[in-house]
Amino acid sequence: MWGGRFEGGPADLMRSINSSIGTDKRLWPEDIDASLVHAGMLRETGIISSKDAATIADGLVRLKDQFARDGVAEDPELEDIHMHVEHRLAELIGETAGRLHTARSRNDQVATDLKLWVRGAIDAVLWSIDQLEDALLDRAEEHAATIMPGFTHLQSAQPVTLGHHLMAYREMLDRDRSRFEAARQRLNECPLGAAALAGTSFPIDRDFTASPLGFDRPTANSVDSVSDRDFVVDYLHAAALCSVHLSRLAEEIVIWASQPFSFVILPDSWSTGSSIMPNKRNPDAAELIRGHSARIVGDLVALLVLLKGLPLAYAKDLQDDKAPLFDAHDLLVVSLRAMAAMIAEIGFDPERMRAAAAAGHSTATDLADWLAAKADVPFREAHAIAGRAVAAADLRGVGLAKLSLEELQAIDPRIGAEALERLTVEASVASRSSAGGTAPERVIEAIAAARAARRSQ
Amino acid sequence: MWGGRFEGGPADLMRSINSSIGTDKRLWPEDIDASLVHAGMLRETGIISSKDAATIADGLVRLKDQFARDGVAEDPELEDIHMHVEHRLAELIGETAGRLHTARSRNDQVATDLKLWVRGAIDAVLWSIDQLEDALLDRAEEHAATIMPGFTHLQSAQPVTLGHHLMAYREMLDRDRSRFEAARQRLNECPLGAAALAGTSFPIDRDFTASPLGFDRPTANSVDSVSDRDFVVDYLHAAALCSVHLSRLAEEIVIWASQPFSFVILPDSWSTGSSIMPNKRNPDAAELIRGHSARIVGDLVALLVLLKGLPLAYAKDLQDDKAPLFDAHDLLVVSLRAMAAMIAEIGFDPERMRAAAAAGHSTATDLADWLAAKADVPFREAHAIAGRAVAAADLRGVGLAKLSLEELQAIDPRIGAEALERLTVEASVASRSSAGGTAPERVIEAIAAARAARRSQ
Amino acid sequence: MWGGRFEGGPADLMRSINSSIGTDKRLWPEDIDASLVHAGMLRETGIISSKDAATIADGLVRLKDQFARDGVAEDPELEDIHMHVEHRLAELIGETAGRLHTARSRNDQVATDLKLWVRGAIDAVLWSIDQLEDALLDRAEEHAATIMPGFTHLQSAQPVTLGHHLMAYREMLDRDRSRFEAARQRLNECPLGAAALAGTSFPIDRDFTASPLGFDRPTANSVDSVSDRDFVVDYLHAAALCSVHLSRLAEEIVIWASQPFSFVILPDSWSTGSSIMPNKRNPDAAELIRGHSARIVGDLVALLVLLKGLPLAYAKDLQDDKAPLFDAHDLLVVSLRAMAAMIAEIGFDPERMRAAAAAGHSTATDLADWLAAKADVPFREAHAIAGRAVAAADLRGVGLAKLSLEELQAIDPRIGAEALERLTVEASVASRSSAGGTAPERVIEAIAAARAARRSQ
Amino acid sequence: MWGGRFEGGPADLMRSINSSIGTDKRLWPEDIDASLVHAGMLRETGIISSKDAATIADGLVRLKDQFARDGVAEDPELEDIHMHVEHRLAELIGETAGRLHTARSRNDQVATDLKLWVRGAIDAVLWSIDQLEDALLDRAEEHAATIMPGFTHLQSAQPVTLGHHLMAYREMLDRDRSRFEAARQRLNECPLGAAALAGTSFPIDRDFTASPLGFDRPTANSVDSVSDRDFVVDYLHAAALCSVHLSRLAEEIVIWASQPFSFVILPDSWSTGSSIMPNKRNPDAAELIRGHSARIVGDLVALLVLLKGLPLAYAKDLQDDKAPLFDAHDLLVVSLRAMAAMIAEIGFDPERMRAAAAAGHSTATDLADWLAAKADVPFREAHAIAGRAVAAADLRGVGLAKLSLEELQAIDPRIGAEALERLTVEASVASRSSAGGTAPERVIEAIAAARAARRSQ
Repeated sequence: MWGGRFEGGPADLMRSINSSIGTDKRLWPEDIDASLVHAGMLRETGIISSKDAATIADGLVRLKDQFARDGVAEDPELEDIHMHVEHRLAELIGETAGRLHTARSRNDQVATDLKLWVRGAIDAVLWSIDQLEDALLDRAEEHAATIMPGFTHLQSAQPVTLGHHLMAYREMLDRDRSRFEAARQRLNECPLGAAALAGTSFPIDRDFTASPLGFDRPTANSVDSVSDRDFVVDYLHAAALCSVHLSRLAEEIVIWASQPFSFVILPDSWSTGSSIMPNKRNPDAAELIRGHSARIVGDLVALLVLLKGLPLAYAKDLQDDKAPLFDAHDLLVVSLRAMAAMIAEIGFDPERMRAAAAAGHSTATDLADWLAAKADVPFREAHAIAGRAVAAADLRGVGLAKLSLEELQAIDPRIGAEALERLTVEASVASRSSAGGTAPERVIEAIAAARAARRSQ
Repeated sequence: MWGGRFEGGPADLMRSINSSIGTDKRLWPEDIDASLVHAGMLRETGIISSKDAATIADGLVRLKDQFARDGVAEDPELEDIHMHVEHRLAELIGETAGRLHTARSRNDQVATDLKLWVRGAIDAVLWSIDQLEDALLDRAEEHAATIMPGFTHLQSAQPVTLGHHLMAYREMLDRDRSRFEAARQRLNECPLGAAALAGTSFPIDRDFTASPLGFDRPTANSVDSVSDRDFVVDYLHAAALCSVHLSRLAEEIVIWASQPFSFVILPDSWSTGSSIMPNKRNPDAAELIRGHSARIVGDLVALLVLLKGLPLAYAKDLQDDKAPLFDAHDLLVVSLRAMAAMIAEIGFDPERMRAAAAAGHSTATDLADWLAAKADVPFREAHAIAGRAVAAADLRGVGLAKLSLEELQAIDPRIGAEALERLTVEASVASRSSAGGTAPERVIEAIAAARAARRSQ
Repeated sequence: MWGGRFEGGPADLMRSINSSIGTDKRLWPEDIDASLVHAGMLRETGIISSKDAATIADGLVRLKDQFARDGVAEDPELEDIHMHVEHRLAELIGETAGRLHTARSRNDQVATDLKLWVRGAIDAVLWSIDQLEDALLDRAEEHAATIMPGFTHLQSAQPVTLGHHLMAYREMLDRDRSRFEAARQRLNECPLGAAALAGTSFPIDRDFTASPLGFDRPTANSVDSVSDRDFVVDYLHAAALCSVHLSRLAEEIVIWASQPFSFVILPDSWSTGSSIMPNKRNPDAAELIRGHSARIVGDLVALLVLLKGLPLAYAKDLQDDKAPLFDAHDLLVVSLRAMAAMIAEIGFDPERMRAAAAAGHSTATDLADWLAAKADVPFREAHAIAGRAVAAADLRGVGLAKLSLEELQAIDPRIGAEALERLTVEASVASRSSAGGTAPERVIEAIAAARAARRSQ
Repeated sequence: MWGGRFEGGPADLMRSINSSIGTDKRLWPEDIDASLVHAGMLRETGIISSKDAATIADGLVRLKDQFARDGVAEDPELEDIHMHVEHRLAELIGETAGRLHTARSRNDQVATDLKLWVRGAIDAVLWSIDQLEDALLDRAEEHAATIMPGFTHLQSAQPVTLGHHLMAYREMLDRDRSRFEAARQRLNECPLGAAALAGTSFPIDRDFTASPLGFDRPTANSVDSVSDRDFVVDYLHAAALCSVHLSRLAEEIVIWASQPFSFVILPDSWSTGSSIMPNKRNPDAAELIRGHSARIVGDLVALLVLLKGLPLAYAKDLQDDKAPLFDAHDLLVVSLRAMAAMIAEIGFDPERMRAAAAAGHSTATDLADWLAAKADVPFREAHAIAGRAVAAADLRGVGLAKLSLEELQAIDPRIGAEALERLTVEASVASRSSAGGTAPERVIEAIAAARAARRSQ
């Protein structure tokens, strides 16, 4: 394959370290598709004859069927997927296969294949994000008025609605979608025709190849075309951040499923037991989603480290881009799918949540707000008064809402009877009706808006 | 500040670990701007009186002048920049200052401040990217026809033009710009009004605050608003990848400045010497740019690790977002500025470059291409013939272009006289005139297109 | 400083990017100490005169006092701490100062200074680890028999003792200690005398300098001496893993302090409140320890990325080693100190813990174990029987320990009366008396062994 | 396997996300070995009968043969390698197999298996490090007096010997060895007997199991035993830093193999060609070693992120420890082996190296040193004089060593004739005979010391 200059062949170990077929064979559909379009362009521009082009195209189509049916048999002598395709093609159609590699190089070929693959991976992720969003919207609707403690610092802070809490994840997913879409758009320029690094002297037509492969245009600079792996990093960044979101939700599920919380119960289908403890019902899937996130972060780091400091143009280091990319993608998709199923099937316990929401004097802010709004007390002072009420309730060993009007007025006489009505968790969430707030009506609106946005995509 | 519930004050060490003023005081302009707009909204909605609002606004403006003039004096008792601003305001205007914190919390306040800061940071980076792009375009134009070796695997591969090589970095910068712009757009929703995490019962108008602060709209979910630091990660991702591009260019400068290459000479103003070796002229700035890139990657990792697995909503871990963010931004901006200056002032040595371009039989591909294009030899076979010609030249100890027609025809009789003309580096680069190729005319076009794109921004 | 070769001075931006004094001035004590010893060696070997050496030594001692009293005034013209020291020395003693830099270079000088600093940092960390271990041992002793739920997957698994749980962290700290000690030992070779990279022609005595600086021996290879920053990575690895341990404990404190758990209450001195919610009592310090861990991991990544791919010997990239190192060290020490104080002062609630330990059928394993041990049931079968008992208890809505003998025997007649006695949490922990197990007697032994190990250090 | 509590089985997706057999089947030898020893202990302590123990042991031995011969057939129903072993054992020996899991849990089982695996991995790495060290020592000996330019900042700094330069890598490998050995020693405590997390009530003998498995002692705390993955992180740290060293050497090989340097030529067996450029001879293996290093750094990050913030004891996240560990180990071992082979077979070009060493006025320091040593000029002044000599040589367009005595004395009259003799590269390296310096005699000594150290291991 490297031609006449080489006398000795590679050492066995060299062959083995150099072979990437075990990893990159996954690119066979992209490699064949790009080759088909390349052959068509070579014909259209007269670089090869129509007859040769037809022979090549016919062979490639047969090869595609073969690979789809039997998979790609790995031959360690044939370094990578590009060589496998070309070699198998030659077995099918003879030496005409040797004309396919005109006006291209493996450098632009692999860049093209990989961009096609990443684009497909993004589409798969976007679909899975949609599924998870649907599950969140459904459960949020069901629980638009279910009250749970809103936490900051994992301390009971203020009551919120479960629907509102779930919709926070919908926002994250929406940003994830935007990130993947931007990555998709940014990568969508076709490197084919950059050849080794300098372009080619053949009269190629790069628009002819870019368009049927779904690219918006050819890349603008041949050196950059074969050196660039930004699109892999962009994908991994979007994947890492998306997986971090999933990990945050998984962390909540793990905490909520613990006995002291018991906010949720996972169905048998999403629980595992123990080989030694017959009592266990473990949220393994949630934990694995957290774990997968760690690995995806590691994959992102690998790519950044790989690229940093590489002079132009192509270097073999770039071959190590695929294993982290494929690893991250597989982990992300399974995480999204598992999370969607868990969210759909998880059992929430509104009783437990409501009870917890009432603990921790969670409506103390409502008292302070009432004082500021209705009794013209500067907020800082109102905050201090409410703090003293909390201390008084603690001393009596009751919740803030259990203090009598007399007790409250003993702390500050400006506290009126209407203030007491504000101290239930129901009143609290209903009152937080500012835009984006947790009041059930706001949550219902947000769900409707999210669904409308999905329909208009 | 935490009001009536607390009896004992914090331990000294607690106070010190908890204080963030040393880091976050940098946010004072954003904090005052957001407070001004918040006060205006409180007045507009009747939550506070016009008189109080005017007193507050006047105080904030005076404070802004004071800070601009004298800086922010750190008081360890006042945990963070928000407390510093509020406290100093109270010193200026008395207890009315206590009304400013109505209907907001530090949780939405810091999210707003930080988004404003990141937005400003992005604008600063975009400006610096423009400067570097200008420098690249100027030097690329100057060297549109200067011939240098194009490398793959740092091996001489094919001749390219220096202008073309430099324009590869322009492509990377263009993607960087797109990445920063997408991050800017994605973050541009205003969290103010989310309050602690649940929204507020005050009749606030979130559009009123979002718009004058330059945001496109308010955020949609209050829990997400105070938990979200995606925008910091997006910034750091864009910064890390941009710094990786700079590191790649810096790596080339370091290699090109080495004596065996001597492609470039750095002016005295961008070189350093040695405390022991009087002969040294070191490319320190390029090396520091490489080093800074490593630190920015570390900063990105810190943020991803920070967020992974945090339950909603706000957690104090988020306070550790600022040091990595500020560190990365400072390093990136100085790297961009130093690179722009270096590119503008670096001396290229076209003689050395051309000589190196001719070495390594760099036009062997041209011979193979000629055979495929003109003598109808399948490319694979043409490649093998050219390889044998390389081996023959090696044996004679000369460059491929020095072989005579007879010698070449002894290898393969189909090699014609015109083939020889293709073997000079000038002919080689001129022939690579495919779209995005290295031919000088293509480079000139690319520069013009880049300049037009800049003008139409 | 770079001598006669340079005509133009550095550009302003170059000077600013190149200056490291803002970061490395922290090394002044190490720089002066190493210079003192170097001067002594130059005298001892006759390279400089005794008079010059005495003048230099006298000046360095005066400088040390000055810096200790007034700090190091930064001069942007004087790039780094080494130049500051030499320049200030020249101001004190005149041109004799110029003889100090004989037979050394800044390359070996900074490597020496930094090793001394890291060694000191390790000693400081080891001291802080000891403090935290003491706090853990004291609380573990106090709670050797306090029963809490042992969790796996954050699900109640089996009862354990709090003392045993705390002692798990003592094991981690013990490994941390071993890691720091190994790093200390590995770094303890003195680079001074490697000069720029090649050694020197002056008749230096490297043992003479190594020994008074506390090094075990001189380094063996001059090129490696100035290129090596392994010791920084070793430190950062040990710091990252130690901070991960602290983060795990901090995570537990945050969960334990949540209202649904309420296993612990943090004293006012280690809690913070909220600017809006008067009810809050937040475990900020624990959260900051988690956050700091993320940053330390980022610092470790920065160093690995920095070094990867640097050719020998010294490169300026190495200057970027200090900021991550100093950042990590400061964060780690404050984390260790804060954790020690929190552990010492945290209030445990044995009642809540015991109640939680009894929930979740946590003694189901004891039933299975009894069946296997006393009724000769293969463990797999015993596990299944206990699982059925758990299901029966669930159905009745009681804990496993509340089932009557009749109910249990209805599930499997081999269950005897003694089995019931095994199902209390007290019996359960008492029975786990295997080596390293949770039985109180084992915990007491482990504490005693840990204290003995400390005394014999 | 989880017994009677579960009614519904896992969802298909749950089963698939939860299954780890595809990854952890690699642990089968360790799992069987630990089971054999565990069975022996159960017999010795009377927990199971001798007959049952013999049946189990016999079955395990047969299973080991079977797996060695046929591999482990993956059954998706059987989650992991532990279940596969136990299930296959039951197929061989019937229900007695159910007694093997007495007094252990998968939590302590997997910790034990994994420690055994890591220990074996360390031994394999140590062996590969030895091979590479041998190759370096041989080539260093061969080139103890071969002169090459010593670089700092990739600028020619001072002449060094190639042997000395290669020996710098030997120092790094020696630290790598120390790091792996320390990791090996630190991990060598046996977790078996910790059971799920609390220890066990069976009268086990943990010393009995620890010793035949080659552990130094049992672990001290059962909760820590099942939560701890420090040993994986320690391995990955040592691997990451070792791979960074390999990457540094690989970077040098890539630069040295470039045409402008041409310090080395890689044999055909370690070069690859191009599919398009017949002239190429690429150092792919060196580039892959650099690339692998990036991935190993990513693997280390994955583990740290995985562990950070996990509460005790076992969590399923820990299952994600294996893929990064196995990936890193495979990459490191192949990198070490490839580097050893490359170093053994690489062709150095002493002529090119010597010529380059003489360029760049590389002996300017020697002139300064001579002035300081022989003419009593303070080093700072001597450095300035040598700098002026460099400038003069530059002006004349010659190397410093080509200046005549008259020309030098015109710069400073104190420069004597002997100084000139110091300015050849041979004199320069010979003079750097300080301990650890580059003089050939020092290199020979260092090689001898290294070999002696190896023999005494």
